[in-house]
Amino acid sequence: MSLSNTSSMDPQPRRHVGARTPRREDSRLLRGQGAFVDDIDITGQLFMRVVRASVAHARITSIDASAARILPGVHLVLTGEDVRELGPVRLEELGYHDLFPHLEEYSHPVLPTDRVLYVGQPVAAVIAEDPYLAEDAAELVEVDYEELPVVLDPVEAVSGGASLHALGNEPASFVKEYGQVERAFAEAAHVVRGEFRIGRHSGIPMETRGFVVEPVPGRDQLWVWGAVHVHDCRRIMARMLGMPLTSIRMRHTDIGGNFGVRGGVFAEHLLVAHAARKLGRPVKWIEDRVEHMVAIAHAREQVHRMEGAFDAEGRLLALRDEIWHNHGAFLRQAEPLVSDITAGMVVGPYRIPAYRAELHAVITNKTPLAAYRAPGRYEGTFARERLFDLAAQEIGIDPVELRLRNVLTASDLPWEPGLEIAFEPYLFNSGDVLDHMRKALDAADYGAWREEARRLREEGRIVGNGIGLLMDKAGLGLYETADVEVDGTGRVRVLTGASSVGQGIETVLAQIVADELGVDPQDIDVMHGDTDLVPDGVGSWSSRSTVLAGGAARAAAQKALAKAVRVAGRLLEVDTTELQATSGRIEVVGKPDQYLTLAQIAERWDGWSARAVGDEPGLHASAVYLDEHMNYPYGITLVQLEIDPTTGGHTIRRFFVSTEAGKMINPLTTEGQIIGAAAQGIGGALFEEFQYDEQGQPLSTSFMDYLLPGAGEVPSVQFFVTEDAPTPDNPLGAKGLGEVGLIAVGAAVAGAIDDALGGEFRVRRIPVHPQDLFELSREAGER
Amino acid sequence: MSLSNTSSMDPQPRRHVGARTPRREDSRLLRGQGAFVDDIDITGQLFMRVVRASVAHARITSIDASAARILPGVHLVLTGEDVRELGPVRLEELGYHDLFPHLEEYSHPVLPTDRVLYVGQPVAAVIAEDPYLAEDAAELVEVDYEELPVVLDPVEAVSGGASLHALGNEPASFVKEYGQVERAFAEAAHVVRGEFRIGRHSGIPMETRGFVVEPVPGRDQLWVWGAVHVHDCRRIMARMLGMPLTSIRMRHTDIGGNFGVRGGVFAEHLLVAHAARKLGRPVKWIEDRVEHMVAIAHAREQVHRMEGAFDAEGRLLALRDEIWHNHGAFLRQAEPLVSDITAGMVVGPYRIPAYRAELHAVITNKTPLAAYRAPGRYEGTFARERLFDLAAQEIGIDPVELRLRNVLTASDLPWEPGLEIAFEPYLFNSGDVLDHMRKALDAADYGAWREEARRLREEGRIVGNGIGLLMDKAGLGLYETADVEVDGTGRVRVLTGASSVGQGIETVLAQIVADELGVDPQDIDVMHGDTDLVPDGVGSWSSRSTVLAGGAARAAAQKALAKAVRVAGRLLEVDTTELQATSGRIEVVGKPDQYLTLAQIAERWDGWSARAVGDEPGLHASAVYLDEHMNYPYGITLVQLEIDPTTGGHTIRRFFVSTEAGKMINPLTTEGQIIGAAAQGIGGALFEEFQYDEQGQPLSTSFMDYLLPGAGEVPSVQFFVTEDAPTPDNPLGAKGLGEVGLIAVGAAVAGAIDDALGGEFRVRRIPVHPQDLFELSREAGER
Repeated sequence: MSLSNTSSMDPQPRRHVGARTPRREDSRLLRGQGAFVDDIDITGQLFMRVVRASVAHARITSIDASAARILPGVHLVLTGEDVRELGPVRLEELGYHDLFPHLEEYSHPVLPTDRVLYVGQPVAAVIAEDPYLAEDAAELVEVDYEELPVVLDPVEAVSGGASLHALGNEPASFVKEYGQVERAFAEAAHVVRGEFRIGRHSGIPMETRGFVVEPVPGRDQLWVWGAVHVHDCRRIMARMLGMPLTSIRMRHTDIGGNFGVRGGVFAEHLLVAHAARKLGRPVKWIEDRVEHMVAIAHAREQVHRMEGAFDAEGRLLALRDEIWHNHGAFLRQAEPLVSDITAGMVVGPYRIPAYRAELHAVITNKTPLAAYRAPGRYEGTFARERLFDLAAQEIGIDPVELRLRNVLTASDLPWEPGLEIAFEPYLFNSGDVLDHMRKALDAADYGAWREEARRLREEGRIVGNGIGLLMDKAGLGLYETADVEVDGTGRVRVLTGASSVGQGIETVLAQIVADELGVDPQDIDVMHGDTDLVPDGVGSWSSRSTVLAGGAARAAAQKALAKAVRVAGRLLEVDTTELQATSGRIEVVGKPDQYLTLAQIAERWDGWSARAVGDEPGLHASAVYLDEHMNYPYGITLVQLEIDPTTGGHTIRRFFVSTEAGKMINPLTTEGQIIGAAAQGIGGALFEEFQYDEQGQPLSTSFMDYLLPGAGEVPSVQFFVTEDAPTPDNPLGAKGLGEVGLIAVGAAVAGAIDDALGGEFRVRRIPVHPQDLFELSREAGER
Repeated sequence: MSLSNTSSMDPQPRRHVGARTPRREDSRLLRGQGAFVDDIDITGQLFMRVVRASVAHARITSIDASAARILPGVHLVLTGEDVRELGPVRLEELGYHDLFPHLEEYSHPVLPTDRVLYVGQPVAAVIAEDPYLAEDAAELVEVDYEELPVVLDPVEAVSGGASLHALGNEPASFVKEYGQVERAFAEAAHVVRGEFRIGRHSGIPMETRGFVVEPVPGRDQLWVWGAVHVHDCRRIMARMLGMPLTSIRMRHTDIGGNFGVRGGVFAEHLLVAHAARKLGRPVKWIEDRVEHMVAIAHAREQVHRMEGAFDAEGRLLALRDEIWHNHGAFLRQAEPLVSDITAGMVVGPYRIPAYRAELHAVITNKTPLAAYRAPGRYEGTFARERLFDLAAQEIGIDPVELRLRNVLTASDLPWEPGLEIAFEPYLFNSGDVLDHMRKALDAADYGAWREEARRLREEGRIVGNGIGLLMDKAGLGLYETADVEVDGTGRVRVLTGASSVGQGIETVLAQIVADELGVDPQDIDVMHGDTDLVPDGVGSWSSRSTVLAGGAARAAAQKALAKAVRVAGRLLEVDTTELQATSGRIEVVGKPDQYLTLAQIAERWDGWSARAVGDEPGLHASAVYLDEHMNYPYGITLVQLEIDPTTGGHTIRRFFVSTEAGKMINPLTTEGQIIGAAAQGIGGALFEEFQYDEQGQPLSTSFMDYLLPGAGEVPSVQFFVTEDAPTPDNPLGAKGLGEVGLIAVGAAVAGAIDDALGGEFRVRRIPVHPQDLFELSREAGER
């Protein structure tokens, strides 16, 4: 085989992509060798504590920091006046500024000068010698408030509630529409209506937020630890601080979970940076869990008023939705992206001829939101799948059968109904939902589940099954960068613009590069999160890392290998057409004893040798992977649940998730993603909610009040993954799988509860708390 | 003017190159904002102390570290056995390994297992909680020695002295020869002979050596502070530690002087790195001044036995030299480079038809050497210029006139006599030494100096003048790297592979880039010494930075500007031929109100815009500057000196240095270089010497015994710089000026002493200590 032959350019058998490779991150993390942001301690560092608003809506009449300022060991107290020059925390420029020119008016102040809009909003910051002193001093900052009426409900916020911003409580709205909606409803055999609510909860990373900023002595430069998406964070900080991008150097730390809600740029980040720069001293900030619960980005909280027009056979003719999305007090980071995606993705994996959604992005006196894992899809899928269950009941068709009649099949492709999501046309171009659904129901043996539940109910137990169908969008975001370097020792370093947020991206990239170079993944280091090493990148969100970072790493590895062939040709004095790459070496075709290993090539092609002929030294290549558009994985979620009517308790007896993966790079990390997502989906369906009292005081500020599913509550998760339809949109064929495990859990749980309680349609809101189950059971006469 | 017109490609007037721009480094350093290696403190760091040999040559019979090891707070004690795996400190691979295959046999052990070869050699290392404890514990390490005979004199070392290495005491030798030497001597009217000795002294940086190594938790990576030439240091450390290059990340610190002698890789560096890696804790090492005096690289110490064959008119027909170069106990870093250069550069700026030098690189029981500012030239110039003074006397020609008859003139060019220096043919291709010498003597008004000295001698004062001619070689080393990035704020970052060792390279590169981009130097940051930012580079030695790093920075700036034009064309929707660059903006020719600033272009051409069309974001370009061969600045040094015969004291009454610069980038930093070099030249001529007793015990271990010229001893330096002959070898036209101020000082001082003492030839050795002056004065009957 010669390298000049395109078909034999593939240098070696691919052994690693697709294999159940254990996560390389774990050997480090499980041995306590992770370095999270709180493990960063800079000599001479000071500590920041934030003074937070204690009321949900008020005018600030005075801030008296004099007692804090004179406390020995306090170096600085910042209030709104001190950071006025920074302006509010800038939103990311994703295109929404053009649609909504006043968007920045709703962005989060670093510190307010005049009023507060939610409990927990930063009002002042104290920087002191140690964290205890900082906390004591923060308590000495006296803020006087003149309280104002609060608005908490999203529907009320745009229908008569007090106006919280000068420009009103609806910073953005989206209307998405295609087909003849009105006509379909006029002609429908059945019109089904419901209001569905999704509660306010969020990703709760084990690691709370933190930030460490070290000013470089004698230079106006900052070293920064603690950002999740280092490039975004650097860009926004640089603009706000008026510093050049290259003067802010982001450093890697391990990240104890992100899920979308920890990765933004927060007011606290700017406070730490501003203080460090002003004082010329390193400043560290680590929030405690109570702060975290009120100041991390919240998520979800939507109201859907949905109507479906069905024909006599249960075929959906049109879907209409009005949505209120409660963004809390300010817009944050990428917003109103989640609102856009919500309105676009309500259609799910269905063949819907006509559609209209109107979404109100709404401001209230609650903590601001961000995109939390499966943003918009978890909410919209709950509403839509509930509507299907309701329709099944009203029309009198089995809920599974109703779905089978409506899902997209291969004959519908390409499905491009004229919907735009996040500035991209929705295009479903690979797969067959019907086929997948049938395979998944067979794999789960769902018939047996139903039989089992029926039998148990006959025994007097309250057991039911629910189903949810899902379609995800993955791989959002134009590009990702990578850099592959083989060292003279044979070690390979992969640099990626992605972030390692627990998803195992280091493992996956090592697999991909190992296959391209023909080396062992153990010989590969994957580095990220350091802007000196990776000056440009995008990051890990929207289930994009494997596809985009993987695509970039693959391309960079291929370029490095091509260089190896070129240099080997020079060193061996052989035409490159006579060389082939195989298992980490470049050898002369037909003469396997004439070869150079990649390590030897890298070693010999040093600065002196390479520069002398005008070449770059080493085996080193960079690449950018550009993605034309998103990919759309789909699947189903099945839940069997038993209720204890005397306590309102429940047991998830069975839990099944299927997905069409296109191509799994690593089945083990895929499973990890799906189990983790399932746990979070269960949390949102049955446990987690940020509740507020009537004055807007948060009631869920500890894990006593904000319930998380623990190991005892998360069931064993049964998987079913098909690789029937590799996406044509990337060379790996992979679809993003970071969120599919989550999307339909709320819907399936709700269906299971209804089924357990006798089949009547009852659940219109998640989470279903124990109190709710207790009440529902009583209504159903089960107690 | 259009950019398509080559002659108008030069976008803006060059205002900064050539201007007396104050050093940008100073505002930081003078305000105490420098961060030197001892300013680096890593949380959790331990401290290393080195146990050093107390005898000059001995077999180690035992090392007992048990008392040190059990001391509470001691974490590790390393002896030779513990670091055997590292091997000795590798030499740089400059080509000498091919000439002398056994070179590495002479390299410096990290720690010895069997014997020590000089007082101060590291024998063990203690790592403890604090530096005081480490020092106490080091004193508990008991080393028993069986002493062996010592060899100290370089001539004796290769003529009957004890053999210190298995392969003998002469690891390398050089014979350089061209022309008919024997015949010239046979036919000469005059043959002049002398033995000249240059003492052992060194650069004494204000900052002693230090090293801080932090292991990255959970990864086999090291962060390193304290290297001078980060790329060399990283390469050698990586090989010795068996680590990939990219796993060792060198960090910038300020550098309190290098002068060639602090910049190598020392045993101590490997000890710190090995200990940090083994312990998983940061380790810091800072040497004290006593250690520094015995363990920093020493320099000079040569013996020249020289003969000149002159014709009747004083024209030099041939020069013959036998040289012994005392390298001390081991070869270090770039050796035997200095020996090579010495043998090659003895010819100086003279038209010498035939030449033969034989150099013995010799091992003795003294501290090892390295290249110290003007290596080989200071020594060879002293010897050669002394020979000229001796010849002037013996032949009976005025010493200035003798030189005028022999220097190279424009008509000799190109002068390429067939001599190889550091693997390059010696090629003098720009300038006219005779013309420069005449101008310089006029500028100095040397006739008046002589008249003044005569008059003062008549008054009974002991005053004389001396002259030395010099030729330097500069710009050694193939290439240098640079990277220029314009930020969206308009700030420019220049990355360079050079090192900032006090020479003002940041200032000079800012001037060069400012002129290319048409921006203010104040808007430019220059960064270096960080391998994450600059993965490949060479460093600052051999007066190469301005030429090579400057050339690279210039090329990178030009590429960035070319990109700015290209992107501006796209953004303004104008053909690039209609654009011109002027004063930091790209404007439409003839329409000066239609323009984009570089900042605007960088801001708009962000990741999203650029990647979407497959381009790299930002205004960012890298370049490598390759140099074909070295450049050869030349000049003269004149000294007028008065002796106090009663004390042996002296006063330098007048001091004049001239040089042909090709092109001065910054006259202010040029002057700084020349003053600093003059001070070091005066030190080597009149003050500084590492002396040893007969057992090889160093006698000069403090500034009480090792005299440095202070502000009171360094005279006002008069400059004369011509820019008559820009070198054709680089686009700046610049010649390296870092060492010219030093080279002929020893020669000129010696001539002045002879002249003061009545004209007889007396000084055959430098430094001339007060005791020597006292003795010489007595011999001359002046007392």
